[in-house]
Amino acid sequence: MKQNKRNIYLEMKSLEEARSLWRSHFIKKTAVETIPVVDALGRVLTKPVFAKRSSPNYHAAAMDGIAVLAEKTYGAHVDHPIILEPDKNAFYVNTGNVMPDNTDAVIMIENVFQLKSGAISIETPAIPWQHVRKMGEDIVATEMLFPQNHVITPYCIGAMLSGGVFYVDIRKKPKILIIPTGSELLDWQSDRIANPPKGSIIESNGTLLKNCAIECGAIADRHEIVPDHPDDIQEIINNKISQYDMILLVGGSSAGESDFTRAVIEKTGQILLHGVSIMPGKPVILGDVQQKPVVGVPGYPVSAIVIFDQFIRPMIYQMMGIIAPRRTTLPVQLTRNMPSKLGIEEFIRVKLGKVGDKVVASSLPRGAGAITSFTQADGLIRIPRHSEGFRSNANVHAELLQSEFTIENTIMAVGSHDNTLDILADQISQTYPYIKLASSHVGSISGLLALKRGTCHLAGTHLLDTNDGSYNLSDIKKYLSHMSVRCMHLIVREQGLILPKNNPKKIKRIADLKRKDVQLINRQAGSGTRILLDYLLQKNGMKPEEISGYHSDEYTHMGVAVNILSGAADVGIGILSAAKALDLEFIPIVREQYDLVIPEIYWETSLIQALVTVVRSQEFQKRALALGGYHTEKTGEVVKI
Amino acid sequence: MKQNKRNIYLEMKSLEEARSLWRSHFIKKTAVETIPVVDALGRVLTKPVFAKRSSPNYHAAAMDGIAVLAEKTYGAHVDHPIILEPDKNAFYVNTGNVMPDNTDAVIMIENVFQLKSGAISIETPAIPWQHVRKMGEDIVATEMLFPQNHVITPYCIGAMLSGGVFYVDIRKKPKILIIPTGSELLDWQSDRIANPPKGSIIESNGTLLKNCAIECGAIADRHEIVPDHPDDIQEIINNKISQYDMILLVGGSSAGESDFTRAVIEKTGQILLHGVSIMPGKPVILGDVQQKPVVGVPGYPVSAIVIFDQFIRPMIYQMMGIIAPRRTTLPVQLTRNMPSKLGIEEFIRVKLGKVGDKVVASSLPRGAGAITSFTQADGLIRIPRHSEGFRSNANVHAELLQSEFTIENTIMAVGSHDNTLDILADQISQTYPYIKLASSHVGSISGLLALKRGTCHLAGTHLLDTNDGSYNLSDIKKYLSHMSVRCMHLIVREQGLILPKNNPKKIKRIADLKRKDVQLINRQAGSGTRILLDYLLQKNGMKPEEISGYHSDEYTHMGVAVNILSGAADVGIGILSAAKALDLEFIPIVREQYDLVIPEIYWETSLIQALVTVVRSQEFQKRALALGGYHTEKTGEVVKI
Repeated sequence: MKQNKRNIYLEMKSLEEARSLWRSHFIKKTAVETIPVVDALGRVLTKPVFAKRSSPNYHAAAMDGIAVLAEKTYGAHVDHPIILEPDKNAFYVNTGNVMPDNTDAVIMIENVFQLKSGAISIETPAIPWQHVRKMGEDIVATEMLFPQNHVITPYCIGAMLSGGVFYVDIRKKPKILIIPTGSELLDWQSDRIANPPKGSIIESNGTLLKNCAIECGAIADRHEIVPDHPDDIQEIINNKISQYDMILLVGGSSAGESDFTRAVIEKTGQILLHGVSIMPGKPVILGDVQQKPVVGVPGYPVSAIVIFDQFIRPMIYQMMGIIAPRRTTLPVQLTRNMPSKLGIEEFIRVKLGKVGDKVVASSLPRGAGAITSFTQADGLIRIPRHSEGFRSNANVHAELLQSEFTIENTIMAVGSHDNTLDILADQISQTYPYIKLASSHVGSISGLLALKRGTCHLAGTHLLDTNDGSYNLSDIKKYLSHMSVRCMHLIVREQGLILPKNNPKKIKRIADLKRKDVQLINRQAGSGTRILLDYLLQKNGMKPEEISGYHSDEYTHMGVAVNILSGAADVGIGILSAAKALDLEFIPIVREQYDLVIPEIYWETSLIQALVTVVRSQEFQKRALALGGYHTEKTGEVVKI
Repeated sequence: MKQNKRNIYLEMKSLEEARSLWRSHFIKKTAVETIPVVDALGRVLTKPVFAKRSSPNYHAAAMDGIAVLAEKTYGAHVDHPIILEPDKNAFYVNTGNVMPDNTDAVIMIENVFQLKSGAISIETPAIPWQHVRKMGEDIVATEMLFPQNHVITPYCIGAMLSGGVFYVDIRKKPKILIIPTGSELLDWQSDRIANPPKGSIIESNGTLLKNCAIECGAIADRHEIVPDHPDDIQEIINNKISQYDMILLVGGSSAGESDFTRAVIEKTGQILLHGVSIMPGKPVILGDVQQKPVVGVPGYPVSAIVIFDQFIRPMIYQMMGIIAPRRTTLPVQLTRNMPSKLGIEEFIRVKLGKVGDKVVASSLPRGAGAITSFTQADGLIRIPRHSEGFRSNANVHAELLQSEFTIENTIMAVGSHDNTLDILADQISQTYPYIKLASSHVGSISGLLALKRGTCHLAGTHLLDTNDGSYNLSDIKKYLSHMSVRCMHLIVREQGLILPKNNPKKIKRIADLKRKDVQLINRQAGSGTRILLDYLLQKNGMKPEEISGYHSDEYTHMGVAVNILSGAADVGIGILSAAKALDLEFIPIVREQYDLVIPEIYWETSLIQALVTVVRSQEFQKRALALGGYHTEKTGEVVKI
């Protein structure tokens, strides 16, 4: 197996090489079809469109008034009005009416005086063609309206109808079949979904990629899940390839025991490519079956997305004769160094927010399994193959996955994790649908340091001063000595021991952490909760090295709780709401104060004022209390520092 | 009628006031519906979504290899390998497999050595949890995945399925009925379309607005055309209002004789607003019928689009609980002054292109009837009510209707009009689908002046030097004395007299223009064709004031031709292809040389090189010759100046 695995990527190509291989191997575009213009929104023209009719198609009155021959009005003046006869040399017209014969100007109704005799008096001369839309003013018959490969907008539809064009030749939508493969996959509609076998995974990539393809303008079908039986997969490809322009085989594109995509394509067609030097997404396969692309897409969701976005999407557009819409890019400042491996092109998902006058970018988890790194991403940063990454002060551009407006209206919160931050985000979305709260959970001290570096709008902290039992004030003074800030109380919360249901190991107090049969899951260094634990250990005369699992850490309360739930650890320190959420045991130890630290310079911004309004609202506080283990007596109070 | 018209707009509101009136009067959002997650692309959440299942839902191998308990591997070294027993303390796993009980790390298959005995030898220790995706690493059950009012992307669908969420509560799509009104309107599917009565207009606004609404995510139906019978319109509103969230009545919103929208709404409901101080779009009506918005949309296409874009679109999004996506804005340089009326907010459509390091904006026709001003627009410039407009060097922002990439790949051509420019644009779109040729027809001399000001990439000119009969060189030297340029021959073309079919007035030569019964349509000052006419008049000893129609002008050859076709004039000077396009008579006078003048600094850019390639191609020259009146012997030749 080992030998096999080493060989398989010898043919690995760069992304650029891979794209150009695809581009030059599959040059066929989708077929042409003729459809009514009224149904052609978003479609691509295969031929230039020429107007068949002028617009307007006659000289038309552009105002309500009277149509006249301008030269008959020359000399009109308030002292010498000219008298005209209706239906003889003056004709009442409404906007859009055909200009009567022998007229070339319209006098607005406001400047027309009807005499008792029925005659018309005018006091100002008309200029030839005034208030007239001349024939062909907008569109002249035979002129080209749109070139080939133009994408049809609502406005184009209006112009074509006006120009007498009722049918257009367009490219057919590419038809794409997506086949999820893998014996471990379970369909969400399966009977077994209520009680899924251990090791089963709910199939999501197939539906995800189907929707990505639909967004490109393709017709996409998701095949039902196919277990890892190469013969079945092969039969499906053979049966379906004639009905589709492209097939995506999801999963099994690597070189493991149950990775059959390569073998299957080799049997029915030809492998053009296996392995691209990008991360995530490396084990991609491009095959040719009956002159159609069959792509082996890696099964990790992030790899699948990157492969779709960088490799498949441009080719879907190429099939339609156009290029994929480019995303806006923005210069951004990295909150931390962004290292990368030489020889691999890497695509990092980042959160973006405008802090002061710059857009700051913080990396999301890099793992290929973290679909949430894409749902939370505002942008993508590409690290080229020849680079070892970027330093935090480097000049870097991000490709936007959200609009600039969204980024400008994102509150960047960095610091400690608390479950009420989700409630806060949701209440903000309810009250201000255009404002987003983005929280990065890095711990209290890192939050304060981020404020110091100017890479966030606020920091959530709960830092105990072990000298006087106060929270946050001394650390704010220590880390933000030259900064004027406000400290808004968000919540008082209960921290304690999180334990498995029914507490099988009968853990009761901090002293029990020393027991040989007790495995701890800790929080990361710099987090308020770890500082709390260290303080409690010290008070109990215990040392870190006496505790099994002390160096094993997680970044959030929920992360700790799930370690307990899964049996990976026996105990952790965390908040009641996290224990409650996963139905775990909880023994309270302390009540602590969780504050939001906000620099004075941001306090009056509309973003922070929106946040303050929500924090002080009944709705937020009611929902926080409902989580359990929270107290809101001081919520919304502010201390200036 | 006059009195009526003056009164009607007394209640006119600013756009901001009008929007806030709508926003506060109609606060109801569309109803909630529950649908499968897999069908929810693009929809808006009405509730936050919480994960029901962790992802992964078990500790999973993240590599192919063997699962071990890390502490059993401590001390392994190339000199002291540790031997493990398969299925006892080492378990073969593939990526994604459940970690066996009592294991907490995976050793990659590449580092596993299988001995002949079947035992396994490892030479490096494992770290706890290495190559393991811990339960909940991506998603922890009970965590909030998305807040309310979140818009669902393909990635969200993937995350929800992974998180065990299979149904979501979303807002129903707003249902909008669009009713085109007007007795002059003709449906494109009407029997009379082949032979439309004079004064009829092909209905296009209804379909256009329907597609605009669809782009916002609404369900939109276009009602059949309703003639100007107020009772019929009223009956339709009464019958349909209960089935829709909004009705748009297109046309008839002004105060003319056949404008019934206001009266109709007054009878069935309440008028909230008539008239907004914007241009185009002023005569808009907002009414309330059974607590639903009924909008009177002006009938001119550009007015209809601006009203939809600025007034209706934001409200469709409000019904869905979100705000309309904001377009990117860019600082631009105006090619000319952009005057505007005080007290009116004006929306100017502009062409945009990147010339050198700045984006230049040139205004498109301002008339409310010119739908092509929207099909050609790359951006919108808003002139506020309190402003009298912008000077050409002002600091102005444009809202983008095209991507920045498109704008960066637009060749800005300014100068003389020629029909082969359309062919050129089409051939460029065929060969380089991402490059656009945008031509502004302002005349040869204005083209050279635009080059001088740096507001275009190239100028099309055909300027006769009356001293030596040469073309362009002397004017290039005169107007671009300090600029290094290349002059590429585009085409040699025949100019002559364009005359009505069968030449009823027997016009034969320039001298005939002096005849009293002959009405000329001229080209604008600064155009090469006008300079040619002036030269011909001079040669014939004629003076402009002797010629009827000399001061009546058009900007293009096709504009001249359509004046002849419609009978607005008897003769014009223009090119054969324009006469041929409209089946008119043509008497040739001269052959002239039409060149593209390109500054040296742009010559090597990819945009200009693409253009040069296409100009020199067989395909372009063949299609140009097919138009008639063109000669391509020198096409593509270049003179450096």
